[in-house]
Amino acid sequence: MRLNVPTRLRWSDLDPYGHVNNASMLRLLEEARIEAFWSTEATTRETPDGAVTTYRGNSAMAVLDGRPDAGTQSIIARQEIEYLVSIPYLRDPLDIQLWIGRLAGASLEVCYEVWSPLGTDAAARVLFTRAVTTLVLVDATSGRPRRISAAERDAWAPYVEQPLTFSRRR
Amino acid sequence: MRLNVPTRLRWSDLDPYGHVNNASMLRLLEEARIEAFWSTEATTRETPDGAVTTYRGNSAMAVLDGRPDAGTQSIIARQEIEYLVSIPYLRDPLDIQLWIGRLAGASLEVCYEVWSPLGTDAAARVLFTRAVTTLVLVDATSGRPRRISAAERDAWAPYVEQPLTFSRRR
Amino acid sequence: MRLNVPTRLRWSDLDPYGHVNNASMLRLLEEARIEAFWSTEATTRETPDGAVTTYRGNSAMAVLDGRPDAGTQSIIARQEIEYLVSIPYLRDPLDIQLWIGRLAGASLEVCYEVWSPLGTDAAARVLFTRAVTTLVLVDATSGRPRRISAAERDAWAPYVEQPLTFSRRR
Amino acid sequence: MRLNVPTRLRWSDLDPYGHVNNASMLRLLEEARIEAFWSTEATTRETPDGAVTTYRGNSAMAVLDGRPDAGTQSIIARQEIEYLVSIPYLRDPLDIQLWIGRLAGASLEVCYEVWSPLGTDAAARVLFTRAVTTLVLVDATSGRPRRISAAERDAWAPYVEQPLTFSRRR
Repeated sequence: MRLNVPTRLRWSDLDPYGHVNNASMLRLLEEARIEAFWSTEATTRETPDGAVTTYRGNSAMAVLDGRPDAGTQSIIARQEIEYLVSIPYLRDPLDIQLWIGRLAGASLEVCYEVWSPLGTDAAARVLFTRAVTTLVLVDATSGRPRRISAAERDAWAPYVEQPLTFSRRR
Repeated sequence: MRLNVPTRLRWSDLDPYGHVNNASMLRLLEEARIEAFWSTEATTRETPDGAVTTYRGNSAMAVLDGRPDAGTQSIIARQEIEYLVSIPYLRDPLDIQLWIGRLAGASLEVCYEVWSPLGTDAAARVLFTRAVTTLVLVDATSGRPRRISAAERDAWAPYVEQPLTFSRRR
Repeated sequence: MRLNVPTRLRWSDLDPYGHVNNASMLRLLEEARIEAFWSTEATTRETPDGAVTTYRGNSAMAVLDGRPDAGTQSIIARQEIEYLVSIPYLRDPLDIQLWIGRLAGASLEVCYEVWSPLGTDAAARVLFTRAVTTLVLVDATSGRPRRISAAERDAWAPYVEQPLTFSRRR
Repeated sequence: MRLNVPTRLRWSDLDPYGHVNNASMLRLLEEARIEAFWSTEATTRETPDGAVTTYRGNSAMAVLDGRPDAGTQSIIARQEIEYLVSIPYLRDPLDIQLWIGRLAGASLEVCYEVWSPLGTDAAARVLFTRAVTTLVLVDATSGRPRRISAAERDAWAPYVEQPLTFSRRR
């Protein structure tokens, strides 16, 4: 099963060529990944400033606590990206399709296809980008990888699908 | 009348202090401004890459064509920002309240108040930031300021309110 | 006395108009400010990853420990920026001139003029931007402002000059 | 032969974990690539604003005209990155070592190793990141790939070396 994560561009993602910059693409994938994986639980906390922090994930995958000071940090070990069609400025959110290509002991491979906005005529839809991120779960205190828990494995298993194959890899 | 523009943070807006970075704040105001002012007309264009560009504004203010190659560029002449409370990581969109403090011949002053997400208990809502941007409409061909048109003035007049006063200015 | 801080653009500071984006300008001022104020002391530390951290300031102003986990955080309370001439892509570093407009108990006002690169024919030099940042020194543990120390005051006093006056302010 | 490109971090490259963000890494590689490939010729041009644009490459590779409106655009078709050790905040520039892994008809593969700053004790130097970018030269007018010219091939041939091998690839 894939998760569809609508993800909005910002004007500042564009470079002087008028296209989404290659590095900005990784920021967009990061936003989609956070939306997919970070905690479904609505938690509210007072900060020292008196401001209120709310977290709320929207997918069944969203079982990681992504607060900056949470016990687990998601560290990126590897990324591979194919930029197939350059992305113009779009007001409607990109349709980022996300799934898990591989669940290992302490790491997972997140696969993405970045499509033009949903709602566009299906025949006209464009696949802009394909990417894979290898994510390692790290214990924030020890700085060492930690094993994927049973609860995480249960939440993520439905999203395991065939990994992406890249056409331009040598 | 003020316009409420829900505007989402990105993880990359935070700096190592775990707060929204001061420069990222301007990116958020930029997104709110674009959402407010750029074209309501849904336009679809083929790009040379075959990708489809759609524009769709959601407010009655949205009468500017914001495409990178449009006839008018919105140039920023001046900004003033007060950072009242530092902003933690929030998944729910900030409530950016936007209005026009002054409509001149070829320029306007956009005022903002950046509040914690709507939906939070009203008593707990926090005013994070106050800002003003002076925007000049520039003819993209000549590079010279151009006058605000009658249609623009009509669209924007309902949003003219008392300008912001800054408490920390000297 | 002013400090000249050569500060390089990045390609990603430009937006689709081909100019330095208004928010990127604040990132450039941030880099100049860090270069000016953060520790002259060369310190070396092992990180948990085995990587080595070195800090080395180059100005007599550089007496703040700017490490992410240092005892003091420099928090920005206010900024005011006038964008006089839009900045094209430049390979040579901008000449950011920086001084202190006001030294108060727990805060200071940093003033900047952003000029085209040094080495250009003097007559052809362009003043791109003028800005002021109000900086508050905050104790990282308590989150409360802390007083400027005598050593900091001594280091900074030579750089106190007449504050900037803005021409476009209302 | 490899080219050593000293490349400075910015404070805003760090994320709340206190490390260089994965997407920021690509901005750093972009800066190194521009430094390596973009025009050695010092050109000066008046912009419509009266500002002066100067370009000056520092390597023998630097034969591409990288101005936003130049005849050729360098488009990125593919990237692969291994993040080996997370990068803390560093004031001294990273040592980005850059070479060409493959020169094809209209494209090239740029290889990078990102090392801790030069000048550190050699034994203590750390390899942070390994990456490959596939670059396609595109004619800005037609939007079609164009062949690498004889002059470009001559300039780049000395930097052709064994391509990177990735250890974590599956």
